[in-house]
Amino acid sequence: MDNKISSVGRVTAQSVEFKETLILESGDQLESLEIIFETYGNLNPDRTNAILVCHALSGNHHSAGYYKNPDERKGWWDSLIGPGKAIDTNKYFVVSPNNLGGCHGTTGPTSIDPKTQEIYGPDFPMITVSDWVNCQALLADHLGIQVWHSVIGGSLGGMQALNWSIAYPDRIKKAGIIAAAPKLSAQNIAFNEVARQAIITDPDYQDGYYLKVGKSPKRGLRLARMVGHITYLSDEAMRDKFGRELKEGKLNFGYGAEFEVESYLRYQGDIFSESFDANTYLLMTKLLDYFDPADKCNGNLVKAFEPIKAQVMVISFTSDWRFSPERSKEISDALLEANKNVSYLEIKSTHGHDSFLFSEDRYVRAIKAFLGNDQ
Amino acid sequence: MDNKISSVGRVTAQSVEFKETLILESGDQLESLEIIFETYGNLNPDRTNAILVCHALSGNHHSAGYYKNPDERKGWWDSLIGPGKAIDTNKYFVVSPNNLGGCHGTTGPTSIDPKTQEIYGPDFPMITVSDWVNCQALLADHLGIQVWHSVIGGSLGGMQALNWSIAYPDRIKKAGIIAAAPKLSAQNIAFNEVARQAIITDPDYQDGYYLKVGKSPKRGLRLARMVGHITYLSDEAMRDKFGRELKEGKLNFGYGAEFEVESYLRYQGDIFSESFDANTYLLMTKLLDYFDPADKCNGNLVKAFEPIKAQVMVISFTSDWRFSPERSKEISDALLEANKNVSYLEIKSTHGHDSFLFSEDRYVRAIKAFLGNDQ
Repeated sequence: MDNKISSVGRVTAQSVEFKETLILESGDQLESLEIIFETYGNLNPDRTNAILVCHALSGNHHSAGYYKNPDERKGWWDSLIGPGKAIDTNKYFVVSPNNLGGCHGTTGPTSIDPKTQEIYGPDFPMITVSDWVNCQALLADHLGIQVWHSVIGGSLGGMQALNWSIAYPDRIKKAGIIAAAPKLSAQNIAFNEVARQAIITDPDYQDGYYLKVGKSPKRGLRLARMVGHITYLSDEAMRDKFGRELKEGKLNFGYGAEFEVESYLRYQGDIFSESFDANTYLLMTKLLDYFDPADKCNGNLVKAFEPIKAQVMVISFTSDWRFSPERSKEISDALLEANKNVSYLEIKSTHGHDSFLFSEDRYVRAIKAFLGNDQ
Repeated sequence: MDNKISSVGRVTAQSVEFKETLILESGDQLESLEIIFETYGNLNPDRTNAILVCHALSGNHHSAGYYKNPDERKGWWDSLIGPGKAIDTNKYFVVSPNNLGGCHGTTGPTSIDPKTQEIYGPDFPMITVSDWVNCQALLADHLGIQVWHSVIGGSLGGMQALNWSIAYPDRIKKAGIIAAAPKLSAQNIAFNEVARQAIITDPDYQDGYYLKVGKSPKRGLRLARMVGHITYLSDEAMRDKFGRELKEGKLNFGYGAEFEVESYLRYQGDIFSESFDANTYLLMTKLLDYFDPADKCNGNLVKAFEPIKAQVMVISFTSDWRFSPERSKEISDALLEANKNVSYLEIKSTHGHDSFLFSEDRYVRAIKAFLGNDQ
């Protein structure tokens, strides 16, 4: 497939500022809010073809196309968003924001706090998936979108789609919940905690005020990302990708990167630590830990799903051990139990949790059919 | 069961110094070697009842009993070693050494290098499981044990038992290989690499010369241990142990330990970082990564097992995802294929990789029967 033809092409980010006070789930509030976002395709006159794409932990608003050069790295979901692709920009108007607390333009820890005129840093309030969804609703209002045709995302993105269907049942027709879970397990939280401790105990973290003193806890962020990558890939994916291959074909009896997998992890950690904000990473991991829509209903997921009116598709991947098919089934089983319109699909894939980023044929066709099937 | 009755009781460590030069697998050599060890039970006049117990990554020679007070924390395998226990000290003479490179008395990175009269630190040579087994053979010679009744261990301990059966087929009658693998997977190596990077990038690591400057990379060691603990417990074990329980019953919207699992990991990390040597930890993880007995036979495990004469028992645990039952089966299948005397047992357990430390009834009876069954 020719990328130039199937890509949405060159894109530019837009932004919007909201001046009203935003009350957060924690009780804290923000005086103003800027959201950066991209759109692909055209909104139809009825405003009924808008799809909200929600990013995961370290994602951002750049989900498709390129900024300058067709050869540069495309948006994170370019495999699925574009003319003729799973999320077809010939048919749909795709809206892709960077979420609150992010570090790519939307108000977050690297922004200036209007009250103090200083960088928020660690004083940025804790946020939740509900807060994200409320901000996305403001963005929908701004764009004149009363009802989303669909809200869709993978991993934490799927949790936002789920939250949308509960919080705004009349504003969402379809929810695509991919590689997600109804809440994190103790093991999921444990991995997040290691990532947080890596960042917080890095001497350059400086209690979170690292930007003020011109530092960045890169060592911690690098380790956090390395741990993350292990959970994104399956054991099988790692075996296929690296096996026990040695970089130089022989053991060196030293602490350099000897196995291919070591050099992969170091590389991923290095890149990430140069480009992501540590306070944002901390916020996002906490927001993941806190996600638990059933909590308000004494742990009863079926009850939590009662308000849902959207048609829901839940997709999982066989090799995903971060949010395994069993976790997706908890969502779809509870939706069935609540008499909701739900379909569940388990896709065979070796890419682990990252599978949601790939364009496996059955996966692409499933999304296309789900979006196009107007019930 | 009354611990005082079933325990080996008060024990004292012994040590022995070997003056001959030890040639290591890496080609490096050590001029002298001290091994610290404990023994439980009595060697019979025929010297045919000696069992070598091999410790895992962070273990040591103190595997049973207590040093001063019956109420103190017992040796790491006290659940299995003692009068009437799985490894019955009424019948067997148990030898439990601290391995080369350790930090509990056996020559290692915290020892003085006789050549320089300085602490070895990062200049301690890389070691392998074969080197460990060779040192244990020296210890056997010293104790007048020509043939081990059994060599047994869990995890990395099981790898030593396997290596014994290949390297010294005439000196081992039985090998108990528990919760082990024939080699590490890319994912296993990846977790070790995160642990190493946590230590090495800790500013207090000081290129490994931290002891010389009165420091210790405790932050890194703490993170390494936290990651380790996630892999020792199963997702299920974590769910049973911690669930999503909140320490204070409610979300605090902060970075303190909110979930029980967070406080458990921090606690384990803190203790470990105060008591273990970072250079030893680095060595042990590398030694694990390097373990691959089939490597000398072009990856052919069946061929690597040809020399084996011992009766072998392979045990795995259903909830172990660090070295899953599939990995144990690779060992037992290759042993079967090589026409060796092997039995394989999968034990139902929820404790994950740590299951080998518990005294689940079926597990205890299996070890007892295996050791007592003189074919």
